[in-house]
Amino acid sequence: MSEARTKAGLARTASHALGQAAAASRSAAIAAAARLIRERTDAIVASNGHDMERSRRAGMPGPLLDRLMLDAKRLDGIASSLEEISRQDDPLGRVSWGRTLDSGVRVERVSVPMGVVAIIYEARPNVTADAFALCVRSGNACVLKGGSAARESCMALAACCRDALVEAGLPADAVQYVDDDAEHTQTSELVHATGLVDVLIPRGGASLIRYCVENATVPVIETGTGNCHIYLHRNANAEKAVNIVVNAKCSRPGVCNAAESLLVDACAAEKLLPPVLCALHAHGVELVGDELARRVAAETQVPMGVATQDDWGREYLDLKMSVKCVEDVAQAIEHINRYGTGHSEAIVSDSYEACEAFLAGVDAAVVYANSSTRFTDGGVFGLGGEIGISTQKLHARGPMGASALTTTKYVVRGDGQVR
Amino acid sequence: MSEARTKAGLARTASHALGQAAAASRSAAIAAAARLIRERTDAIVASNGHDMERSRRAGMPGPLLDRLMLDAKRLDGIASSLEEISRQDDPLGRVSWGRTLDSGVRVERVSVPMGVVAIIYEARPNVTADAFALCVRSGNACVLKGGSAARESCMALAACCRDALVEAGLPADAVQYVDDDAEHTQTSELVHATGLVDVLIPRGGASLIRYCVENATVPVIETGTGNCHIYLHRNANAEKAVNIVVNAKCSRPGVCNAAESLLVDACAAEKLLPPVLCALHAHGVELVGDELARRVAAETQVPMGVATQDDWGREYLDLKMSVKCVEDVAQAIEHINRYGTGHSEAIVSDSYEACEAFLAGVDAAVVYANSSTRFTDGGVFGLGGEIGISTQKLHARGPMGASALTTTKYVVRGDGQVR
Repeated sequence: MSEARTKAGLARTASHALGQAAAASRSAAIAAAARLIRERTDAIVASNGHDMERSRRAGMPGPLLDRLMLDAKRLDGIASSLEEISRQDDPLGRVSWGRTLDSGVRVERVSVPMGVVAIIYEARPNVTADAFALCVRSGNACVLKGGSAARESCMALAACCRDALVEAGLPADAVQYVDDDAEHTQTSELVHATGLVDVLIPRGGASLIRYCVENATVPVIETGTGNCHIYLHRNANAEKAVNIVVNAKCSRPGVCNAAESLLVDACAAEKLLPPVLCALHAHGVELVGDELARRVAAETQVPMGVATQDDWGREYLDLKMSVKCVEDVAQAIEHINRYGTGHSEAIVSDSYEACEAFLAGVDAAVVYANSSTRFTDGGVFGLGGEIGISTQKLHARGPMGASALTTTKYVVRGDGQVR
Repeated sequence: MSEARTKAGLARTASHALGQAAAASRSAAIAAAARLIRERTDAIVASNGHDMERSRRAGMPGPLLDRLMLDAKRLDGIASSLEEISRQDDPLGRVSWGRTLDSGVRVERVSVPMGVVAIIYEARPNVTADAFALCVRSGNACVLKGGSAARESCMALAACCRDALVEAGLPADAVQYVDDDAEHTQTSELVHATGLVDVLIPRGGASLIRYCVENATVPVIETGTGNCHIYLHRNANAEKAVNIVVNAKCSRPGVCNAAESLLVDACAAEKLLPPVLCALHAHGVELVGDELARRVAAETQVPMGVATQDDWGREYLDLKMSVKCVEDVAQAIEHINRYGTGHSEAIVSDSYEACEAFLAGVDAAVVYANSSTRFTDGGVFGLGGEIGISTQKLHARGPMGASALTTTKYVVRGDGQVR
């Protein structure tokens, strides 16, 4: 049997104990992991040093090296995040519905753990600790498969998690770390581990997510890709428009809630675009647009390339933005529902009618009126961290906190009733 | 483009209007469909006659012919069920969570339709009307693919649904009926219609469900297979045990919430088994069991075959039951979690401790103490019909009513805030 299946089996066995452990024990395990991470900072940083050196030699690009890097400050941040999750309200045992049927049996619907959650991610060692904490908070065992470039860092963090479980009197096997080879054998085993894995959450780039969605026979939650739009309606306040567009595009261009495309009412393009385009240009944003947008850009002396059909569907994850003029809010909604990825979409307008039409008509996990798409985040929403941002509609949509890792069970108590 | 993809595309376009239609219009459409089904009873029965004749000639077995058959009484039942759904509370627009963030933006999580729901079913024409009603209730467009043996019946019912939508001022294209060929080309197209179908619900036998789970790239909800157990704990009341086992096994052996396997504490087998086995035998149930169960059966003069390993995992869907002796509640839970399908599981016991341990430890959609597994049903639970009984943990678990066909959307209202 493959390593992934063996470990998923161990996780499944451990999941029964974890799912029935008291909230206090699970909180204690998460807090203990935070403490161990702080205590073992030097050793974890040393392990990470080996990963960094190997990756640097292998030619990993700078931004990815930055994601891989762990230092004392980052480990402190990870530990603090765990401490916050250890203090959260427990998502288990909540009764969301109940009634007594005519026959007298009493039915209630109670939140329970999923069982075994598998998370496949790339060379971001912090996901190891985050995923552990959110899974234990929700009573789930987890199988973690990080990118091989982060192997030593992930294993050092996973060891803290396993030791913390034991300290809290819970089975270490509730956290499994799976390493991978160049052929991604273990990834393939995990996506096919029907009966062992209750849900798989790929967390990474578009190709990893596509691989999981296309190949998995276990249930998958699609996360992350964000082709987000800001739509400037004719009644947009120009100052708010500039602030929101610049924040959504430039504050962190490499993340999924960053804006990739700007829509503007054609009739207001001459008024609204110039200040926005100047601000984007000043922030170093490369622009591509349709004919009208390019005419306005030229008048404003801001360089703008020709947007091709392909641009409307692109998630640049970079300081680049497409610009398109639309007739009205209906056409903006249609464009977004066609080219968007269902992540985060915003309108800027002082018109109540336009805002409400946009909020109702756009089909996305999070829809915004007069605010930046950058707010889409489990921490910001107060969910206490996130395991990912779901862009699908099944089970969970938008930022997923611990409660997104629970399911329900109907509990029926009777006195001999039959149907 | 295939028929299935073309129709899924038409459904997707229509889904926008349906998702934003008022609850009253959607109720009116469902009620109108009920009225049209009553008005067109003779024509629908005639269409069904053609299906019945073709299927009889093709050698369809009796129980399947019975499922296929429509007469005035059954159509009246279908219409009544639609009328009930038309009067249900609307599941859309419910705010399940909300808060104002530190920045002042207001976030709320609102229930919204999935979009396009695809349902693949077999030769049960009533599913056409049920699925239409639950989808429209929840603001979803639907693509229905019934079994080809029920072609004319399904099309006649689908025509009522489409005409009813038009009567209510809604797009007829929100209901699509897809016929299939012998190669199941359309089924294959539907399970791969990523971007057109938001969720696929197979409703039928184990092989149809397995095909969908293994092949679909669109999200699937697994439904229906039920290897359900009744566990007689040593403190079971013998009379309740007999009633519950007989009801769960014999009242309708062909359905998924029927019991397939009987567990009993070994130390109480001599006391509890004889009356239960006699009652099952009197109802014509074929029994297979382990060594101890067979010894008790022999003493009771009830015939019982040898249960093989294979029997513990079987869903007989027939008057047949396996019997196994276990040490205690822990071993019963372990057996059920290993061989069960996560559908409905029951304990009979007067011990509070044993019941609570069973209810907490068994991992299934519905767990019962001292009542029959036959209660697992959307109608019985008061959900107003069901689109299926989910045996998976993602999104919905147990009987799925209209609200199981909704997802959520975060709506954020701000005043120019950026992060």
